[in-house]
Amino acid sequence: MTTRVESDTMGTINVPNDKYYGAQTARSLANFDIGTEKMPKEIVTAFAILKKAAAITNAKLGLLDPALRDLIVAAADEVIEGKLDNHFPLVVWQTGSGTQSNMNVNEVISNRAIEMAGGTMGSKKPVHPNDHVNMSQSSNDTYPTAMHIAAVEAVVNYLFPRVKILRDTLHAKSEEFMDVVKIGRTHLQDATPLTLGQEMSGWVAQIDLAIASIEATLPQLRELALGGTAVGTGLNAHPDYAVAVAAEISTLSGHDFITAPNKYAVMAGHDAFVGTSGALKQLAVAFMKIANDVRWLASGPRSGLGELTIPENEPGSSIMPGKVNPTQSEAMTMVVAHVMGNDAAIGFAASQGNFELNVFKPVIAYNFLQSVRLLADAAKSFNDNCAIGIQPDRKRIKQLVDQSLMLVTALNRKIGYDNAAKIAKTAHKNGSTLRETAIELGLLTGEEFDAEVKPEQMVGPLTIKK
Amino acid sequence: MTTRVESDTMGTINVPNDKYYGAQTARSLANFDIGTEKMPKEIVTAFAILKKAAAITNAKLGLLDPALRDLIVAAADEVIEGKLDNHFPLVVWQTGSGTQSNMNVNEVISNRAIEMAGGTMGSKKPVHPNDHVNMSQSSNDTYPTAMHIAAVEAVVNYLFPRVKILRDTLHAKSEEFMDVVKIGRTHLQDATPLTLGQEMSGWVAQIDLAIASIEATLPQLRELALGGTAVGTGLNAHPDYAVAVAAEISTLSGHDFITAPNKYAVMAGHDAFVGTSGALKQLAVAFMKIANDVRWLASGPRSGLGELTIPENEPGSSIMPGKVNPTQSEAMTMVVAHVMGNDAAIGFAASQGNFELNVFKPVIAYNFLQSVRLLADAAKSFNDNCAIGIQPDRKRIKQLVDQSLMLVTALNRKIGYDNAAKIAKTAHKNGSTLRETAIELGLLTGEEFDAEVKPEQMVGPLTIKK
Amino acid sequence: MTTRVESDTMGTINVPNDKYYGAQTARSLANFDIGTEKMPKEIVTAFAILKKAAAITNAKLGLLDPALRDLIVAAADEVIEGKLDNHFPLVVWQTGSGTQSNMNVNEVISNRAIEMAGGTMGSKKPVHPNDHVNMSQSSNDTYPTAMHIAAVEAVVNYLFPRVKILRDTLHAKSEEFMDVVKIGRTHLQDATPLTLGQEMSGWVAQIDLAIASIEATLPQLRELALGGTAVGTGLNAHPDYAVAVAAEISTLSGHDFITAPNKYAVMAGHDAFVGTSGALKQLAVAFMKIANDVRWLASGPRSGLGELTIPENEPGSSIMPGKVNPTQSEAMTMVVAHVMGNDAAIGFAASQGNFELNVFKPVIAYNFLQSVRLLADAAKSFNDNCAIGIQPDRKRIKQLVDQSLMLVTALNRKIGYDNAAKIAKTAHKNGSTLRETAIELGLLTGEEFDAEVKPEQMVGPLTIKK
Amino acid sequence: MTTRVESDTMGTINVPNDKYYGAQTARSLANFDIGTEKMPKEIVTAFAILKKAAAITNAKLGLLDPALRDLIVAAADEVIEGKLDNHFPLVVWQTGSGTQSNMNVNEVISNRAIEMAGGTMGSKKPVHPNDHVNMSQSSNDTYPTAMHIAAVEAVVNYLFPRVKILRDTLHAKSEEFMDVVKIGRTHLQDATPLTLGQEMSGWVAQIDLAIASIEATLPQLRELALGGTAVGTGLNAHPDYAVAVAAEISTLSGHDFITAPNKYAVMAGHDAFVGTSGALKQLAVAFMKIANDVRWLASGPRSGLGELTIPENEPGSSIMPGKVNPTQSEAMTMVVAHVMGNDAAIGFAASQGNFELNVFKPVIAYNFLQSVRLLADAAKSFNDNCAIGIQPDRKRIKQLVDQSLMLVTALNRKIGYDNAAKIAKTAHKNGSTLRETAIELGLLTGEEFDAEVKPEQMVGPLTIKK
Repeated sequence: MTTRVESDTMGTINVPNDKYYGAQTARSLANFDIGTEKMPKEIVTAFAILKKAAAITNAKLGLLDPALRDLIVAAADEVIEGKLDNHFPLVVWQTGSGTQSNMNVNEVISNRAIEMAGGTMGSKKPVHPNDHVNMSQSSNDTYPTAMHIAAVEAVVNYLFPRVKILRDTLHAKSEEFMDVVKIGRTHLQDATPLTLGQEMSGWVAQIDLAIASIEATLPQLRELALGGTAVGTGLNAHPDYAVAVAAEISTLSGHDFITAPNKYAVMAGHDAFVGTSGALKQLAVAFMKIANDVRWLASGPRSGLGELTIPENEPGSSIMPGKVNPTQSEAMTMVVAHVMGNDAAIGFAASQGNFELNVFKPVIAYNFLQSVRLLADAAKSFNDNCAIGIQPDRKRIKQLVDQSLMLVTALNRKIGYDNAAKIAKTAHKNGSTLRETAIELGLLTGEEFDAEVKPEQMVGPLTIKK
Repeated sequence: MTTRVESDTMGTINVPNDKYYGAQTARSLANFDIGTEKMPKEIVTAFAILKKAAAITNAKLGLLDPALRDLIVAAADEVIEGKLDNHFPLVVWQTGSGTQSNMNVNEVISNRAIEMAGGTMGSKKPVHPNDHVNMSQSSNDTYPTAMHIAAVEAVVNYLFPRVKILRDTLHAKSEEFMDVVKIGRTHLQDATPLTLGQEMSGWVAQIDLAIASIEATLPQLRELALGGTAVGTGLNAHPDYAVAVAAEISTLSGHDFITAPNKYAVMAGHDAFVGTSGALKQLAVAFMKIANDVRWLASGPRSGLGELTIPENEPGSSIMPGKVNPTQSEAMTMVVAHVMGNDAAIGFAASQGNFELNVFKPVIAYNFLQSVRLLADAAKSFNDNCAIGIQPDRKRIKQLVDQSLMLVTALNRKIGYDNAAKIAKTAHKNGSTLRETAIELGLLTGEEFDAEVKPEQMVGPLTIKK
Repeated sequence: MTTRVESDTMGTINVPNDKYYGAQTARSLANFDIGTEKMPKEIVTAFAILKKAAAITNAKLGLLDPALRDLIVAAADEVIEGKLDNHFPLVVWQTGSGTQSNMNVNEVISNRAIEMAGGTMGSKKPVHPNDHVNMSQSSNDTYPTAMHIAAVEAVVNYLFPRVKILRDTLHAKSEEFMDVVKIGRTHLQDATPLTLGQEMSGWVAQIDLAIASIEATLPQLRELALGGTAVGTGLNAHPDYAVAVAAEISTLSGHDFITAPNKYAVMAGHDAFVGTSGALKQLAVAFMKIANDVRWLASGPRSGLGELTIPENEPGSSIMPGKVNPTQSEAMTMVVAHVMGNDAAIGFAASQGNFELNVFKPVIAYNFLQSVRLLADAAKSFNDNCAIGIQPDRKRIKQLVDQSLMLVTALNRKIGYDNAAKIAKTAHKNGSTLRETAIELGLLTGEEFDAEVKPEQMVGPLTIKK
Repeated sequence: MTTRVESDTMGTINVPNDKYYGAQTARSLANFDIGTEKMPKEIVTAFAILKKAAAITNAKLGLLDPALRDLIVAAADEVIEGKLDNHFPLVVWQTGSGTQSNMNVNEVISNRAIEMAGGTMGSKKPVHPNDHVNMSQSSNDTYPTAMHIAAVEAVVNYLFPRVKILRDTLHAKSEEFMDVVKIGRTHLQDATPLTLGQEMSGWVAQIDLAIASIEATLPQLRELALGGTAVGTGLNAHPDYAVAVAAEISTLSGHDFITAPNKYAVMAGHDAFVGTSGALKQLAVAFMKIANDVRWLASGPRSGLGELTIPENEPGSSIMPGKVNPTQSEAMTMVVAHVMGNDAAIGFAASQGNFELNVFKPVIAYNFLQSVRLLADAAKSFNDNCAIGIQPDRKRIKQLVDQSLMLVTALNRKIGYDNAAKIAKTAHKNGSTLRETAIELGLLTGEEFDAEVKPEQMVGPLTIKK
């Protein structure tokens, strides 16, 4: 590995020749040999958008030479396009303000811009990492801004589409099976019937509620810290900068952002992430319910509930045909467990701000973006490899409804509560059907029983005769 | 203790004569001797509103005799007024559907109504706990409805007013101290200055954001399960009942409620509580930041930061005048720790629904309402016993700003970065002031220094000369 | 309410005449109107043991007049016996060092001792709350000592006996049902058989492991902070005091305690509670598994797994005989959810110490003792109202095993894997039994099948012929 | 990419020619496109140890041809040596039993062994992935066994050495600074003095307690599930296998393992991980306290506490000499936040077992091993880049002690409490020193004051004159 010399205010340090990063990135690599978790790529991309927007805005405000702006924009575009991914080696467990990742971006853009301009890497000329790339910025306002840009992008463009695919599949299944009358279960015990479509509509509604909850938290993520600089006062920034740069970021990112009305709150706290993470947990909770229902309803093939069949994606046992392990439910519910842990970490981290800065920024970003990605991917995987293939075992479903003692409820009006209860109790004791028992007890004929006990009429409110 | 005999479908059981509850409550007391945590009073009150609304609605729909309605309403009103609090002895750790608390309410209203009508308690005549008080209802839809009513009431009428008192106090303080220039701190290290008012405005903004987050979750709590009956289908309820009873509950409670568009989702999941609890955690996180800032800024009296003074409410040490322990911050931050735990419990519990029912209802209600109450009370206590008495130690604050090496930044434009850095480094090494050092190094006169280094001009963006 | 005047270093304050507490307790009531959660009684009792031990030790070391010692001991004994419970009104959400509860105990013992001596309450003569009752102590070392005493007492004398009752019941059931061959289930899917006794032995082993884990953490709870006084140095305490008072506490409490080798660690951190709470969570996790298995195996009566029957403790539906809701499992699993939340709160609180003190003591004590109590009570309730009545439905269990496609494994040696698989696949496709299918395919006679396929021989390792 | 055809019971599938894995790994890649988190390398290594031990044991018991054993051992050794890391591409979010990672190992060892034997990859001859590599095993007992092996290895050989380095550094510092008298702080307020060495001894003791807690949990991780096969009964395994294979694993791994006395408990629950994770959280909590104390004591340089100096590892601000951000504390405390989240995820996951299997195995393994790695790495990084360079600012420390009002305590015996309090109150009011005030009030001469007020005599218990 050949190296070149880069420098910062602490002195010089060797840097690999094939990397654009500079002295501060190199120092961070040496000082933080902790874990394997890299700063999320989404944060790097968001930083590049931010740097590009800042350069454009600084030039507009007359603070940055248009020639330097163009170089910064060109280099930032390469970061956005993912061409320079190998130049961002830092881990999450670094300075809590993310300063070193901010400098990593500054250094890479500076050196790549210098290269484009035909200069000498490390010379900081003509594009200086601090003076030009970081102009009107501080790590303290850029890192939280990158967090917000990355979060909105991830939620809106990655999470929502994937969750909605699953939601739509389940909705279509719900409509398709709206007439399949099945046993209801409360406390895991047999209860009054409903249709499979009704049951699945509850899953769809849970997802819809969760999406609505997440959406309701987005306005706070759309507020950017940029313009607060070091402590929130905006020292050294142009008075028009904060508003203008938020507008520029909106243009570049395709998402609506505004400058945060109060910069102190969004640099010293990352409370918005607590709110959104709570809403993500709501989605996780809904996924847990759905994944559990699916695997329980598909349990068997002989000794489980057996009302649904799901796709067989991998070999079950080599000896047991019909052993379809509900592996997509398992992946999904493991993701749920993990998201719950991430939410706990985010809450803890967000509570620990002091004065003008919260220095748990990278761990919040890491956990948040991981939760988003895992929920999105698990939704997609569950959809493609399980939900689309869910089918009812209509024979089994009918059998369970027909043998249910619960249907006796329908006889209350005809023969009275006491006689109905007598039928049910006797049937339970003898392990016989309600119909057999009703006839045996001489309370109804088979025809009378059939006329009254119709599960399909028990899946809605009273029919009111007018 | 004299007793009377009450009965249910399992047979008879003795009940204290001085209690209105009946057989099922008595059985629950015997079967669940777990802990000391009672079903929250807010839930009982909400149940009584619900029972009253159901009676009125059932009568309107022609299902309930107006005379019985009036008796139920009269008894329910006494529950709402708190006159019968001693008749609700059940603990949280019971049936996960809250069935026994639903029956506790049914039994108390029934027996009190019977008493009003001159009947015999336990006779179930003329007001039957199931047939009349519980008409068109199931525990499965009443308990979640009571949870939603209690939650909205607690958040809107208990939490918000108390939090806003604290918010307004801090806002007034922020305005009052908007000109008090002080040292900023990032990474706990000295940073560029800001004003105390600016710093406190961040606290206010954090609270405002948290309140907005909580408010954004309320629509989901305003959707009621009532009308779903046993499994969500509405079996045995009048088709117009769900909409009508939600309207009646709105009238009685003074909060807007609607019937949930999908009953399956809100009986089998309590995901809305996860979302709102996440927003409560956002408030907790903001409180943590504020309480920590206050106690750190008030630390000392000699060996701490010492920028603020706070009210002395209790004896500190008998020997140390000026030892004011920041006890309100301590109570507040302990509440924060507890709320974080409650949020974890709620998430876990809400994820465990199966099929048509989640049977972790009471533990969700208990933790949620406790979080609301503790945050509200802590806000009020912190306001009354601490925030209103916060005062800056202007002398100390000025001293810290004046001796800050950070102010050297202001000299960059006058003498250049290198000379400014030389002053700062020398001053740090010698423990001297910037002014002394600047003069000593012959770089500026005292007058020149004073003309340039003005902390009060460093608390905002660049002043642009036009 | 008649009052008397009490005083502290801040001045005078009125106190109810019928209460033994004094000025500092009265101030705390006024300053901390937060929530309803009282300082746990276990802490008050532990404090009284501690005060008694300190008085005896101080007298032994020649620092306290024996006459005053006797008065303090007599008053402390009344607190230990629970006679003065009404005199400890403070809530959890107070000073984070628990100072006010320490003073509450000092004041009550002082005034009761004064009363015994014929003195004037509030006069602090002859027994002064600080000088005598609190001699050689500080809140900073007494509160953590009370936490440790209460914790050991609660775990050893309350939790362990109750958990062991449940453990022994399940162990006896496991032995009783050791020959009941049933279907195994992995991934919720049918798997190879085991016996019900084997399955239940896993529950017992999980409990045994959890108890062992909790026991392994107790040594750290047996180390006491007492003797550290204000900051851990032992200022103002006799050099022999720390060791002696720990010995005295051991005598009085009946548990082995030693003085903590390092006082700074146990006053500024309560890390031991994190360790023990983690072990309590292990027990909670085991309870979750057991309670879930029980309710799932008892699900039905017609459309669930139906392998177990459990006691019917309350009316299920008035119409459905056999609907036995698994309410004890529900109470148990709600407790589990709550304990998980408590563990999160304890971890957060314990992490927040600074310098010489952690000021989250009361919230740690409250959550820890609540977890212990709830787990203990839930174990007892689950045992008495559910576990002792668990019975297998042998007919149903046999039916499920007999129809299992999994048993085909036993034929591998006789007819080869391919033929065995052919039988299983055909049986699954046709919904027929293995036996029917084997005969139909002409691969074995019924007699041959019966000779080979014996589930009871599939519940252990290979039988090795020697 | 050239491919070959591999097959399993579901049919054939193309696999890259340059990979040793087979059909089931390929299917898992297709079916679980979720996240980027790979199955931890520690698990793969542990699996290889397990496969090697099983082959040796099976051969000893006469079930496996020694020639095949040698091939399996040779291939497994390459996995252990890390030569085949690129052949384990699966993510955490797969089947909850880890079946696919078990098969990944079986396939890689099989194909590499076939290659060594000159056979055709994918032919399963002469070494079959199931029949030979997986002989006497099931995913259900191998995956938990690999979890335990990996956990013990990571804790004993990775975590403990790194934590002990930090512990020893702090211990040496504690000894070095045992005579540096400094102000104590409780409630963040000035308190009685102690020495810096005493204060640091508390940090050491917290670490020692945490290590002891972790060690106390290891016995449960030393119990292995292997031998339980599919459901815990040991079906198809030799009766001597379980004990023998645990002994072999002990030999190969260098750690003591035994076969779990009850296999059902350790396949259906992973409760031991909850216990150990709780102990890891205890370590995290101790690290939080230490990292916070260090950064607070090093806060400044002018407006903080300023008692310690720590190494300057990266540029602080380019303008502020002396601005040393406590970045190692920040990385450490972010790790703590993350470990708390991991503990929550582990608890949730471990609680969700059903019947004979817990299917949250990979998420438990992932979170546990990540916590171990992060705590270990953070300890090492904090040691190397911060702790070894901690130095007291003796001048500042002395100044803070000398000006403390707290020292007045020492005068109680000489001039009485009232006069001492008068000095302290006056000094606080006037902002003067105790000495000045004492002289000014005419209560003592300077000499008398100096003779009495000696902070260095206030850092221990009473000196008893004999």
